[in-house]
Amino acid sequence: MRVGVLTGGGDCAGLNAVIRAVTKSLIHHGPAEVWGIEDGFEGLIEGRGRPLGWEAVSGIIATGGTILGTSNRGSPLASEQAMSRALEHARTWRLDAIVAIGGDGTMSIAHAMAAHGLAFVGVPKTIDNDIEGCERSFGFDTAVSIVTEALERVQTTGQSHGRVMIVETMGRYAGWIALEAGVAAAADVILLPEIEYDVEAVAEVCRQREGRQRYTVICVAEGARARGAGYTVERRVAGADDPIRLGGIAHVLREQLQPLLDSEVRSTVLGHVQRGGSPTPFDRVLATQYGHHAAQLVLQGAFGRMVTLQQGRIASIPIEDVAGRNRRVPADHPLLVCAREIGVCLGEGAGPG
Amino acid sequence: MRVGVLTGGGDCAGLNAVIRAVTKSLIHHGPAEVWGIEDGFEGLIEGRGRPLGWEAVSGIIATGGTILGTSNRGSPLASEQAMSRALEHARTWRLDAIVAIGGDGTMSIAHAMAAHGLAFVGVPKTIDNDIEGCERSFGFDTAVSIVTEALERVQTTGQSHGRVMIVETMGRYAGWIALEAGVAAAADVILLPEIEYDVEAVAEVCRQREGRQRYTVICVAEGARARGAGYTVERRVAGADDPIRLGGIAHVLREQLQPLLDSEVRSTVLGHVQRGGSPTPFDRVLATQYGHHAAQLVLQGAFGRMVTLQQGRIASIPIEDVAGRNRRVPADHPLLVCAREIGVCLGEGAGPG
Amino acid sequence: MRVGVLTGGGDCAGLNAVIRAVTKSLIHHGPAEVWGIEDGFEGLIEGRGRPLGWEAVSGIIATGGTILGTSNRGSPLASEQAMSRALEHARTWRLDAIVAIGGDGTMSIAHAMAAHGLAFVGVPKTIDNDIEGCERSFGFDTAVSIVTEALERVQTTGQSHGRVMIVETMGRYAGWIALEAGVAAAADVILLPEIEYDVEAVAEVCRQREGRQRYTVICVAEGARARGAGYTVERRVAGADDPIRLGGIAHVLREQLQPLLDSEVRSTVLGHVQRGGSPTPFDRVLATQYGHHAAQLVLQGAFGRMVTLQQGRIASIPIEDVAGRNRRVPADHPLLVCAREIGVCLGEGAGPG
Amino acid sequence: MRVGVLTGGGDCAGLNAVIRAVTKSLIHHGPAEVWGIEDGFEGLIEGRGRPLGWEAVSGIIATGGTILGTSNRGSPLASEQAMSRALEHARTWRLDAIVAIGGDGTMSIAHAMAAHGLAFVGVPKTIDNDIEGCERSFGFDTAVSIVTEALERVQTTGQSHGRVMIVETMGRYAGWIALEAGVAAAADVILLPEIEYDVEAVAEVCRQREGRQRYTVICVAEGARARGAGYTVERRVAGADDPIRLGGIAHVLREQLQPLLDSEVRSTVLGHVQRGGSPTPFDRVLATQYGHHAAQLVLQGAFGRMVTLQQGRIASIPIEDVAGRNRRVPADHPLLVCAREIGVCLGEGAGPG
Repeated sequence: MRVGVLTGGGDCAGLNAVIRAVTKSLIHHGPAEVWGIEDGFEGLIEGRGRPLGWEAVSGIIATGGTILGTSNRGSPLASEQAMSRALEHARTWRLDAIVAIGGDGTMSIAHAMAAHGLAFVGVPKTIDNDIEGCERSFGFDTAVSIVTEALERVQTTGQSHGRVMIVETMGRYAGWIALEAGVAAAADVILLPEIEYDVEAVAEVCRQREGRQRYTVICVAEGARARGAGYTVERRVAGADDPIRLGGIAHVLREQLQPLLDSEVRSTVLGHVQRGGSPTPFDRVLATQYGHHAAQLVLQGAFGRMVTLQQGRIASIPIEDVAGRNRRVPADHPLLVCAREIGVCLGEGAGPG
Repeated sequence: MRVGVLTGGGDCAGLNAVIRAVTKSLIHHGPAEVWGIEDGFEGLIEGRGRPLGWEAVSGIIATGGTILGTSNRGSPLASEQAMSRALEHARTWRLDAIVAIGGDGTMSIAHAMAAHGLAFVGVPKTIDNDIEGCERSFGFDTAVSIVTEALERVQTTGQSHGRVMIVETMGRYAGWIALEAGVAAAADVILLPEIEYDVEAVAEVCRQREGRQRYTVICVAEGARARGAGYTVERRVAGADDPIRLGGIAHVLREQLQPLLDSEVRSTVLGHVQRGGSPTPFDRVLATQYGHHAAQLVLQGAFGRMVTLQQGRIASIPIEDVAGRNRRVPADHPLLVCAREIGVCLGEGAGPG
Repeated sequence: MRVGVLTGGGDCAGLNAVIRAVTKSLIHHGPAEVWGIEDGFEGLIEGRGRPLGWEAVSGIIATGGTILGTSNRGSPLASEQAMSRALEHARTWRLDAIVAIGGDGTMSIAHAMAAHGLAFVGVPKTIDNDIEGCERSFGFDTAVSIVTEALERVQTTGQSHGRVMIVETMGRYAGWIALEAGVAAAADVILLPEIEYDVEAVAEVCRQREGRQRYTVICVAEGARARGAGYTVERRVAGADDPIRLGGIAHVLREQLQPLLDSEVRSTVLGHVQRGGSPTPFDRVLATQYGHHAAQLVLQGAFGRMVTLQQGRIASIPIEDVAGRNRRVPADHPLLVCAREIGVCLGEGAGPG
Repeated sequence: MRVGVLTGGGDCAGLNAVIRAVTKSLIHHGPAEVWGIEDGFEGLIEGRGRPLGWEAVSGIIATGGTILGTSNRGSPLASEQAMSRALEHARTWRLDAIVAIGGDGTMSIAHAMAAHGLAFVGVPKTIDNDIEGCERSFGFDTAVSIVTEALERVQTTGQSHGRVMIVETMGRYAGWIALEAGVAAAADVILLPEIEYDVEAVAEVCRQREGRQRYTVICVAEGARARGAGYTVERRVAGADDPIRLGGIAHVLREQLQPLLDSEVRSTVLGHVQRGGSPTPFDRVLATQYGHHAAQLVLQGAFGRMVTLQQGRIASIPIEDVAGRNRRVPADHPLLVCAREIGVCLGEGAGPG
């Protein structure tokens, strides 16, 4: 038996722990061989791969990134030719199945390729913790830890100078990182994509704190948006004709708040540092269990399924249930309610949302 | 309404986060007042307490230990006098209920005092993660992180010198810390109280690794024991008549292994460093949710219940279901099976256990 | 005897350790009293201060920021009125001397006020490590640690995706942070304000690495500049008439490099996270020694001097030697030479600079 | 030109950074080849070595331990045969010089072998920071960081329970680690090998703190000793005839203090965790500079010298000046004076020492 492994989409702490657990579980079990496919589906299309043995995956549990490489480019769904080349390489390499570690996009490709007879088992990878049907994905705890530390660092600056400090985290569609890190770091305001925020409500919190605590820490997910009229910031590169839309909710929020406050407002965008580096022990254990369970599914022939965490336990669900859907923070999520009831401002205004 | 809060038993990262969330939730809700009882039940007996306001619990989410103090001494169950003094102080302070944060012992006292008409809500505290009915307790993730880091540190020494490195973790009755940290740090051998280990099986792993990897890392819970005849080490203090039994499975294991191996064997006992210090973000969030939920139970009048985590969700169970029972690692626990199947030695011998 | 303490300018890890050591040293010595002036010279002008006792400074060595607050606003040099108010408050408070902890600006003010008869001792504070006459300032080691960790995190992303990762650090005039963190994190390219970089030389390093290592990590100080023609990026806010100049060398460098490379180029600006948070043990020890030495200078009546580190030892120099000067990385600095000779690209082109 | 590199004695954070810098500097310079000798002088005697190229030393700056391995066994000085075999392998491998990274013992061997015509350059390695003529050695900052963190962790336990917490650090002959970490973590008592401590003086500090702060943190170097009569603890292994001397100043101090105090006294021995793991950025930079400078000395033909740090600068001294001598904390060391004058108890009694 020969099993391929690939990692697709953006990198994330814990990928190597999954690769290691898949490989060791399959080798430990018996006659299985493991084949590492390089740079996700791009490598499958282009025929770049190598055997993965016990030694190759030893000592990688604590390292960030993925030893296999990953890519956002190269999808077998892009063209018939791409698909046929991908299928051909799977045949050439004599792969009985592929363990695909990736997000929504990866699962969609896996599901589509399965229709061409290639067996897949999926492992969810999303630093935003927003894959449907999966309570907690590896890499998330690491990202939360990094954001928490950053929030604590800027808090001391805010306190010393009497400033409003804004920190922008990842989370385009779902605010899990901002919510958990904001609670962990005792942020005063947490803004999520799921709740349109009221600028005046946020400003009011800052003003109240100006008197006594002097500072305010705001944790904002990149996908958060103010209620009401759209807000746009554009930039113009010298020589270019048209201005370019400027991203960055942290900067937008700063420009919204500054006119309403006496204190200085400062913003920081954490960016790529949230993805990389060594996974937390929690993420290593979770990723190891995901990898091990994926191997079990392969050995049982339970293809077309994605490993998941449900009700606190490792389980699996059909890949097709996942594709194209996002797990967002529901309005009645216990941690959201908890945050509100310990006095965190979630940007909610007095009036109807 | 006035609610007392106390922390009992050994300290643990996250206690302050619970105290903070209980206090803020109750104050946020309305007319409730919070009363901090000092040094656990000792303070209740001796009448040492103070009001806890919003300011008093601000800025403590990230600090280790407990601002209320804790004690292993002083139980209302010790004597009738102790009980009556404790009840009297609760009356003097006009406490409508007490949120008791503690382990097995604390829950037993709370249960017994409830029979005298004092209303209790419990919050489980166990760094060993071994309270019955609770999937994950705060402080555990922090302890696992500290142990994981220590295992990684000694691993580099083991590798450089070609040694067998033993690290002893907490876990007298349950091996959760050793199991999770051992998996997270890729320990080669993990020994738990739940599985009597076979010295020869452990030695065999070390010998096999002597050739290729040169080193072996062993993570052993303090409650682990070798199969077969009892092993005793005694020490004699100069001038004393009788030798004293020497604790320390790390040292015992070292003396068991050294004669069987060519490599040097070294041991380290982590001890108190596992308890203290700033909680991980995970533990802060969990402790905050526990504290918030305890406050909800108080507000709902749902007394005699302990907050818990079940099937990945915050819930509660009757305190009496907890007292006097330990949650140990079951033989078929998924992480145990996973560890074994990725090649970790669990000390299991070839023959019957 | 009564001694004032103030912290001026931007915050920096280690300020509290200095305040603590000044206070404890003076109190320990004898009859001295310590007076905390709030928010730097702003507090001196506005008459905001409080006594600092042993308890007030206990437990603060590990905390970031400054318990006294700081401000960039409010200088006694701004007007005669400001100066006379500041001097008046010093008299009202009966201050025999002030320990001023701050940067270049703070030292200039202290020097000017000394002419009006107010005794000063200075303690250098610069996260950029660029105060003249001082080999190493507290807060610098902490900043280097944070930047090093960030570089390591993005490195794993670069490696996984085959990207060029740019990280922008503090250092407007001097590149010490970028240099030390770049060396510590094994950055492939380090760009400093002291060496104008050649875009083509940097691109060439990236291209060479594209083949073999796949990724490149570039550590660039905010004050770095490309050789040759000025480079400008402007942005236009919707509705505004004139575009605004866009800062950020990281973004500039990204736009310079991207057209020259096959790999994607990504940039991150670390910003405020470099300042805050708990100081490293190194910085705590250094700050403690600075504070203790400042107290000694006060007790000896050695006013008009700033504590410093010279030839590896705590010493002092006249404040006037410091004001208005910057310590930049000299072209023959041993670490610069070392970096070059272990293969780090410093952006130097082939031709004349 | 071909240059050997070896690491001798106990491992230490930063060894790999030195190996990397030596190798890259020599390769970068020109025609030099680098030869890695395995397990210190043992490998030289037994003929175990391998070529070290650019790739082999890439990516190791942040890893603990030594990729070459090290050993306390195997000295060319042990016998004539050992010496002749070592010299023979140096000839067989055509080594023009050896860079020996190690402590006092390594330098003694290097000095002795130099008399047989083998050229050496030394790089000091001592986690205790106690090599004569060297102000600061790599690995020391890392050890201080680990100890500081441990002290902070146990402090929260001490505070919560009202206990005296003892932490034993490395430092058999010199107390540098205990001194720096003790100051950085605000330990209340710091005990060094250089100052015999007075048990009663230490107990008095604990008693004074029992009232107000409730807890005391004591940082004790393993080589510290009480003034006055020798103190011995022995242990007897079951079945053995003679008791064995029990090491461990932490335990001794605990037994000395407990009878004098109301609070519980607890002790922790940090042990091997102080050595291993990833070096701090400070240590990486220092180790890189040491390695680079060693390569420069080789290229200049400046043999028989050891790299060092003097007056804050990288320099070198004759190896023979180092051998057999220890750098202890002098009685008038500024940090010692500083610690005393900010109120730290150094165990000094009232009477004559």
